[in-house]
Amino acid sequence: MAIQSVPLEKAYRLLNHGPTVLVSAKHQSTENVMAASWACALEFSPAKVTVVLDKMAFTRSLVEQSGWFALQVPVVQQVQMVVDVGSESLKDHPNKLNEFGVRLFYQDGFQTPLVEGCVAWLLCKLIPESHNQEAHDLFIGEVVSAWADDRVFKDGHWQFDDVPTELKTLHYIAGGQFYVIGQGLKVNEGP
Amino acid sequence: MAIQSVPLEKAYRLLNHGPTVLVSAKHQSTENVMAASWACALEFSPAKVTVVLDKMAFTRSLVEQSGWFALQVPVVQQVQMVVDVGSESLKDHPNKLNEFGVRLFYQDGFQTPLVEGCVAWLLCKLIPESHNQEAHDLFIGEVVSAWADDRVFKDGHWQFDDVPTELKTLHYIAGGQFYVIGQGLKVNEGP
Repeated sequence: MAIQSVPLEKAYRLLNHGPTVLVSAKHQSTENVMAASWACALEFSPAKVTVVLDKMAFTRSLVEQSGWFALQVPVVQQVQMVVDVGSESLKDHPNKLNEFGVRLFYQDGFQTPLVEGCVAWLLCKLIPESHNQEAHDLFIGEVVSAWADDRVFKDGHWQFDDVPTELKTLHYIAGGQFYVIGQGLKVNEGP
Repeated sequence: MAIQSVPLEKAYRLLNHGPTVLVSAKHQSTENVMAASWACALEFSPAKVTVVLDKMAFTRSLVEQSGWFALQVPVVQQVQMVVDVGSESLKDHPNKLNEFGVRLFYQDGFQTPLVEGCVAWLLCKLIPESHNQEAHDLFIGEVVSAWADDRVFKDGHWQFDDVPTELKTLHYIAGGQFYVIGQGLKVNEGP
């Protein structure tokens, strides 16, 4: 596998089918990762995203302080880690990332950590909007770089029909219940 | 099948796995329906959602004028209609809903049309926010009532493993390419 750049105007496709994401951020020497279901594309160009970050989430403070975050798309083989980082806070588990087997990496030129083993990454610069952040816990980011695992996303399209289940995306409901993305379905556009 | 009420505090679960939705609205005697991929839960209680409505979308003007909209979750057997209502505007196709076989119904006490054959419906009162609407095309609604087809969503949970493919949700990418929601996966919460 190789991590390939995704053109920014196609970055929305990494989130368009509604996968559960991991949110990562770093301020000074503190790195953290949380799970989020409420992440969504907002604009094609310049590429923008929204994500809801609860006031209880430690990662939120890292986003606010650094002005940067990444959204990344985890897969079936990471499902226990996704639940673990989504259930436990860095406040109570200062060694959380090691405990749960989260390995981070960095892309050249960026200070925001990315999570190994995911299949897509969107590196985002926070567009500060105090009303949205305070009233709605809603954070808006401009996607400044995006990458994908070329086994799973190639030539601007997901390739889920050609990969094993372990590499398919997760779609969370509640209470530990996920659904895995299923079969492709192609239809003609327009009547 | 029967359409059952969904408790408002569980309404987020209808969108949590990231399905493509249909957005419906009515102002005076004009009804319309469009497709949207960028819809997301925003708050558990009071239940709130976001949806991105482009300035080109006729439905957007109906939402702005009436202050109401509905999000609903279509399924595989409706896929051609989803693409059709997403591709063609009421401006060019004044008879669009009939042409594309969209049948509407109303729940008692509400003036916002709902689309037959979907499996979940969230009826929303617009929370007007001019900055979000103008700068980001982002609309926020409070969910005031929600319903689901009890073959597919029961006791607060989706039942996708027990229904035929025709009743599974659609997850759009681009260019007529969808993925269907797949198998369930249950894991323990927390370490």
